[in-house]
Amino acid sequence: MFNIDKLYFKIKNSSPICVGLDTSYEYLPNFIKDKSINLNEKIFLFNKEIIDATKDIIACFKVQIAYYEAMGIEGLLAYSKTIKYIRESKGLVIGDIKRGDIAQTASMYAKAHFEGEFEVDFITLSPYMGMDSIEPYLKYVENGKGLFILARTSNKGASDFQYIKDEKENSLYEIVGDKVNELGKNYMGQCGYSSIGMVLGCTHSFEAKKLRQRWNDSFFLIPGYGAQGGKGEDIKNYLTNGEGGIVNSSRAILLAYRKENRNEMDFGKFSHEECLNMKNDILEAVD
Amino acid sequence: MFNIDKLYFKIKNSSPICVGLDTSYEYLPNFIKDKSINLNEKIFLFNKEIIDATKDIIACFKVQIAYYEAMGIEGLLAYSKTIKYIRESKGLVIGDIKRGDIAQTASMYAKAHFEGEFEVDFITLSPYMGMDSIEPYLKYVENGKGLFILARTSNKGASDFQYIKDEKENSLYEIVGDKVNELGKNYMGQCGYSSIGMVLGCTHSFEAKKLRQRWNDSFFLIPGYGAQGGKGEDIKNYLTNGEGGIVNSSRAILLAYRKENRNEMDFGKFSHEECLNMKNDILEAVD
Repeated sequence: MFNIDKLYFKIKNSSPICVGLDTSYEYLPNFIKDKSINLNEKIFLFNKEIIDATKDIIACFKVQIAYYEAMGIEGLLAYSKTIKYIRESKGLVIGDIKRGDIAQTASMYAKAHFEGEFEVDFITLSPYMGMDSIEPYLKYVENGKGLFILARTSNKGASDFQYIKDEKENSLYEIVGDKVNELGKNYMGQCGYSSIGMVLGCTHSFEAKKLRQRWNDSFFLIPGYGAQGGKGEDIKNYLTNGEGGIVNSSRAILLAYRKENRNEMDFGKFSHEECLNMKNDILEAVD
Repeated sequence: MFNIDKLYFKIKNSSPICVGLDTSYEYLPNFIKDKSINLNEKIFLFNKEIIDATKDIIACFKVQIAYYEAMGIEGLLAYSKTIKYIRESKGLVIGDIKRGDIAQTASMYAKAHFEGEFEVDFITLSPYMGMDSIEPYLKYVENGKGLFILARTSNKGASDFQYIKDEKENSLYEIVGDKVNELGKNYMGQCGYSSIGMVLGCTHSFEAKKLRQRWNDSFFLIPGYGAQGGKGEDIKNYLTNGEGGIVNSSRAILLAYRKENRNEMDFGKFSHEECLNMKNDILEAVD
């Protein structure tokens, strides 16, 4: 079974939510910061509690590797432990790495993130260098791994390059999306979506319906919800009857315990509540 | 003194060569593979010899992090040791990371690669997400660090997206280059080049002169020489009187010892010779 099929069924059984484990040291509750253990153990302890508290009501986790790289080798140990724990708990994990390189170098990134200590179920990739920068990952896709390739991102600067239009009035991100959708047709899961999906920020929802129809074979990873301003209403048009995409939220879930009068010891419980609120927000909008 | 100035003077005193330490385990001579030491020590031992053997005739090193990520934590230990050794030997090192992300995440990548265990002098970045994905690095640039942003890459697939032309007939890579060159004007070194340079593959040399004039403030990192097919003749028009760019070669230098009848024990010496040949090839073309 391809990972995209597993993701599809997890969404059916829970919600179209992806919990972003963008764990900065600053986000930890004081009682964890104060423990006499290594940094990697502190980060992992926090992540483990979030994973345990939310895994039954969400579909997958996304681990943003930048936060871990910033802590050096200790951080990458925490990254490795976190993704291993998710996979051992029968969860699915997206390595949010946004790598983009060619030939032998891309093969090395593929090996790094689809085998060994940093093995995940899906990764994100950047398409700037062209479609031959995607090829080295395909042998892993054939065996079930999944890709999410950046198309249109949620930041303001997305317009700098992604909105450049060619002579046929197609934007760069549309040209990227067309090529990704086309490539993906060779890697269709049983669920009706391809193992090669794309990243579409939820902050430009006016064009969502058009894009959902244009790339009907592609699964969408949708960031921008929560701390970046996106709401359930912004999400619904990226989905077909509530299907075909997954919505990521990171800080709002990780830091739910910091709302007033909350006991930091119960941070897992508050993250769970935040996921429930998000689920209701999205399902109400979709209905 | 900004790192771009240091790079400029190193080139003046040696050659416009960057040695790419894209070190795969397979590249090691057997006598190193056979040692009873950890993987990270084997990789470092090889790199150290290449660094010592070449540092006096080249300007800087570029370490492609993908090769090290592919070896997991051990690989990243070797990465860290390698860049520390170069910096302690008064050398300059480019972390070839091609990261590209936004906001808080980009700040984390900046911290990861301009501070702490993975600190380097320059990094490469991918511009797909827009110019706000570059901003979080600028506080380090103000203090001397340097960036090389992908403009036009050396691979065949570069044409998929980088050659898309807008209504004014500007290609994506030209629009990227214009914005990078413009931003760079705020970070000029004493040498006349900006701390924010760009990556331009040497495999499309027919347009080199035009680009050298168009982005006169920008320093070029030029891959594609050697194993990828580029020659001195392809390089010369990317330079102004032999200045303003640095040419990377990786495999041809690292694997020089594998040419027939060579003793693998002397791999450092053969790498040195290869750099000398490359220097002569480039200087002859430039003259």
